[in-house]
Amino acid sequence: MKALKRIVFPGRFQPVHKGHIEVIKWLLERSEEVLIVIGSAQKSHTVDNPFTAGERMLMFMESLKEEGISREKVMIVPVQDIEFNSVWVSYLESILPPFDSVASRNPLVVRLFKERGYNVLVPPTFMRGEYSGKKIRERMMNGKEWKDLVPGAVARIIDSIGGVQRLISVSLSDEEEG
Amino acid sequence: MKALKRIVFPGRFQPVHKGHIEVIKWLLERSEEVLIVIGSAQKSHTVDNPFTAGERMLMFMESLKEEGISREKVMIVPVQDIEFNSVWVSYLESILPPFDSVASRNPLVVRLFKERGYNVLVPPTFMRGEYSGKKIRERMMNGKEWKDLVPGAVARIIDSIGGVQRLISVSLSDEEEG
Amino acid sequence: MKALKRIVFPGRFQPVHKGHIEVIKWLLERSEEVLIVIGSAQKSHTVDNPFTAGERMLMFMESLKEEGISREKVMIVPVQDIEFNSVWVSYLESILPPFDSVASRNPLVVRLFKERGYNVLVPPTFMRGEYSGKKIRERMMNGKEWKDLVPGAVARIIDSIGGVQRLISVSLSDEEEG
Amino acid sequence: MKALKRIVFPGRFQPVHKGHIEVIKWLLERSEEVLIVIGSAQKSHTVDNPFTAGERMLMFMESLKEEGISREKVMIVPVQDIEFNSVWVSYLESILPPFDSVASRNPLVVRLFKERGYNVLVPPTFMRGEYSGKKIRERMMNGKEWKDLVPGAVARIIDSIGGVQRLISVSLSDEEEG
Amino acid sequence: MKALKRIVFPGRFQPVHKGHIEVIKWLLERSEEVLIVIGSAQKSHTVDNPFTAGERMLMFMESLKEEGISREKVMIVPVQDIEFNSVWVSYLESILPPFDSVASRNPLVVRLFKERGYNVLVPPTFMRGEYSGKKIRERMMNGKEWKDLVPGAVARIIDSIGGVQRLISVSLSDEEEG
Amino acid sequence: MKALKRIVFPGRFQPVHKGHIEVIKWLLERSEEVLIVIGSAQKSHTVDNPFTAGERMLMFMESLKEEGISREKVMIVPVQDIEFNSVWVSYLESILPPFDSVASRNPLVVRLFKERGYNVLVPPTFMRGEYSGKKIRERMMNGKEWKDLVPGAVARIIDSIGGVQRLISVSLSDEEEG
Repeated sequence: MKALKRIVFPGRFQPVHKGHIEVIKWLLERSEEVLIVIGSAQKSHTVDNPFTAGERMLMFMESLKEEGISREKVMIVPVQDIEFNSVWVSYLESILPPFDSVASRNPLVVRLFKERGYNVLVPPTFMRGEYSGKKIRERMMNGKEWKDLVPGAVARIIDSIGGVQRLISVSLSDEEEG
Repeated sequence: MKALKRIVFPGRFQPVHKGHIEVIKWLLERSEEVLIVIGSAQKSHTVDNPFTAGERMLMFMESLKEEGISREKVMIVPVQDIEFNSVWVSYLESILPPFDSVASRNPLVVRLFKERGYNVLVPPTFMRGEYSGKKIRERMMNGKEWKDLVPGAVARIIDSIGGVQRLISVSLSDEEEG
Repeated sequence: MKALKRIVFPGRFQPVHKGHIEVIKWLLERSEEVLIVIGSAQKSHTVDNPFTAGERMLMFMESLKEEGISREKVMIVPVQDIEFNSVWVSYLESILPPFDSVASRNPLVVRLFKERGYNVLVPPTFMRGEYSGKKIRERMMNGKEWKDLVPGAVARIIDSIGGVQRLISVSLSDEEEG
Repeated sequence: MKALKRIVFPGRFQPVHKGHIEVIKWLLERSEEVLIVIGSAQKSHTVDNPFTAGERMLMFMESLKEEGISREKVMIVPVQDIEFNSVWVSYLESILPPFDSVASRNPLVVRLFKERGYNVLVPPTFMRGEYSGKKIRERMMNGKEWKDLVPGAVARIIDSIGGVQRLISVSLSDEEEG
Repeated sequence: MKALKRIVFPGRFQPVHKGHIEVIKWLLERSEEVLIVIGSAQKSHTVDNPFTAGERMLMFMESLKEEGISREKVMIVPVQDIEFNSVWVSYLESILPPFDSVASRNPLVVRLFKERGYNVLVPPTFMRGEYSGKKIRERMMNGKEWKDLVPGAVARIIDSIGGVQRLISVSLSDEEEG
Repeated sequence: MKALKRIVFPGRFQPVHKGHIEVIKWLLERSEEVLIVIGSAQKSHTVDNPFTAGERMLMFMESLKEEGISREKVMIVPVQDIEFNSVWVSYLESILPPFDSVASRNPLVVRLFKERGYNVLVPPTFMRGEYSGKKIRERMMNGKEWKDLVPGAVARIIDSIGGVQRLISVSLSDEEEG
């Protein structure tokens, strides 16, 4: 019997990287079930959010399979932003099954859940400085190597959708205006 | 190898009943994976939509466990309405992993997916006339027996949240106005 | 010292009538402060919601003055619908000053606040059957007497904006379609 | 020189019918320019709103060509609902070029524009009882003749998109619930 | 009899400070009634908008009491953004009681109300450079003294909700991304 | 017979300038019909988006007339943002008549349409460096000459609405906060 029953793990996951998988393993040692919340589900095709929620779901599904992590204990739920911070936790309570804790290193997320009385886990950084969505996107845009920072399945998905080209394309949009 | 890879099964599931479980079994014979889409995720506490998306997710999670259906092959995703029918399929394509078919008996859903070129499965009715969300809600409101129409897990969840009392409460709201 | 500190009194108030004023007096005997929440603030010019939120605010402001009820103890706040019942109480908590109770005869409102652990007061009906927004609107549409059911200030406001004519106009819209 | 400069003609146009074309001709005798506003642009695939805004735009474009009415003097603009009646005229003022009048038989539309001080034209009914969107949709659903009530171009468009089948499909959705 | 009847005073009030109280006093010399509009009511827990609308309402309620300013003449209304500048004044007209003027130093607000023909008052700066929401928030984040810039009641409220810690927490979120 | 039937030309057009007119002429050589999509229709009164959709529509209407370009072949449609990139093309398909191509130099727009299989035309730059909305707005704000960069009709419209003063006003709002 684990100490916790169901823990929410929210993030944008742009893209899913090896650090996220490490966190999931770390959480499964502490909780019966992990509920991955893919935030900003409506966003894609921007420099900070290149991938659709569906693509990010697929990244998790394939990576978990690759890592031998059972989906019996890990759910993946896309969630749109509501742009109303003080209501956000209540919104999650409404669309998710009951949970008792949250895992996040994001100070806003930590704050919002603490103000509502939740148990908050701050996972350790795994190879941090390397395992970072922002740094991976920058590597993609600058033509540097990035594939060793993500699960093999994620690299294959990004290749199959032309993800690097997409990211480079949208990065040019800010500079261009007719 | 099944004929289909991933099939979407959208509904409101107010509440999850035995007919839904039968459909899922029927779909798993035809498809590698089933993606349950819990629609109208923002709705609850009304006569037609008494349960929150989170409660409906839990109903599926517990029923699948009870039935011995592995969540490796069945995902459950809450999805809010967009009130824009002609864009709805594109919206699902964006927030879900790739799918090749849809299963529905709802003529609007069937139509929208067919207009976008999707393969549509119309599942058979299982004990129809009995397995119907609307009829089950009516039974609840009228004090009739309803528990044999839903999986045992669903009955326990509805009891634990005072679901029948909630449904009766909200049914009175239409009549009352100060 | 009253038993309660601040009580929320939500409604649509289409229009403000004498029953509402009676409730406010009744609440002021029990609470330090009353927070009138004018719901469906975005709605107007329909059969069920003829008056704008601003017009309804004015009705309360003028009626309270007429009745000699101090605005020191009564606040009036227009609130738009969010169409997300399970999040509604949390939404009110976010945009209103702290409150400890709610007053309502609406079963949905009662239910939502009770599920969140609030103290709920159900005010008595005052001359009920007569003091009812719906009946007053029907009287207006049918050319019957209605002014004795609302505070004098409300009758003057409705007259000054051509409220009865507006109600009759919009009641015809449902029947007409080119 | 016409008496009016630019007149707004709002409607849902589900579908465009001969009465609408008659109104446009009648308006062009009185105004330099007509601005057709296709309302509820986000709605389609329902019994009351079967056609998308794009389909309705095309119906007008082809019908005007067929009738020899120049698009130099007639603009067609799709506009989404805002569900905020008291702000609707201001919303139209913001997204449309300046106009001085509105043409409508809809009492709500007439009321909203009059309250904002606009000149309102109520066009005569042309063959009314026959030229009615609602009646045409009912004829379609009941397998009756409807093509003589709409411009030839509209009949061809509806045929090409399978519009009658779509209408019949969605009319069945209200009755069905799993 | 004052020159003006009812004046709107919009702002974000993050947090309420002594300059705002001075403006209210200045306005009450010129107008029968002041309508404080707490804008961006949906925002909180960000660096620019740390406090909820409810917290900001409470700040005004307690500060007015402390200053001996009667709420008979001052209303406080939370208003959500609509992200549609050209419709914003019309939106306020709809949800507020009638007003004849606006008080603001914000050039956008001044412009929008002038384009709609309103009387605009630009209040003097009171101790400006000091009485500024932005500077107060920066002082809070940098551990500098800030309490003498806000009414005593505001300082107590911010302390009671851990407002400074909240502000510091959310200020870290921009830098962190997993 | 032109190679293409109907081409969509999306932009923000803040303001319409001579480069846009050149693109339209260039497109009319290649397509039967051009559909100008005025994006971000809900935006105005900001530094990047000073003009309302209605003002921008009028700029096109008057410029086309001035240039002798017939509106028989050019439609102008205001479209609000949906903040959901991956659904945006589907949204346009729904509210516009059928089109076969898109014309844009914006990399995001090019990418989104290509991912949906559309034919994309990248128009040449006409006097680029000069014909740029951003540069024209900067010239306006800095008191430099700008009228030779826009059609005469556009200059007259901007003058008549006090557009330069508006732009300067709103540019001050970012710096000001009480």
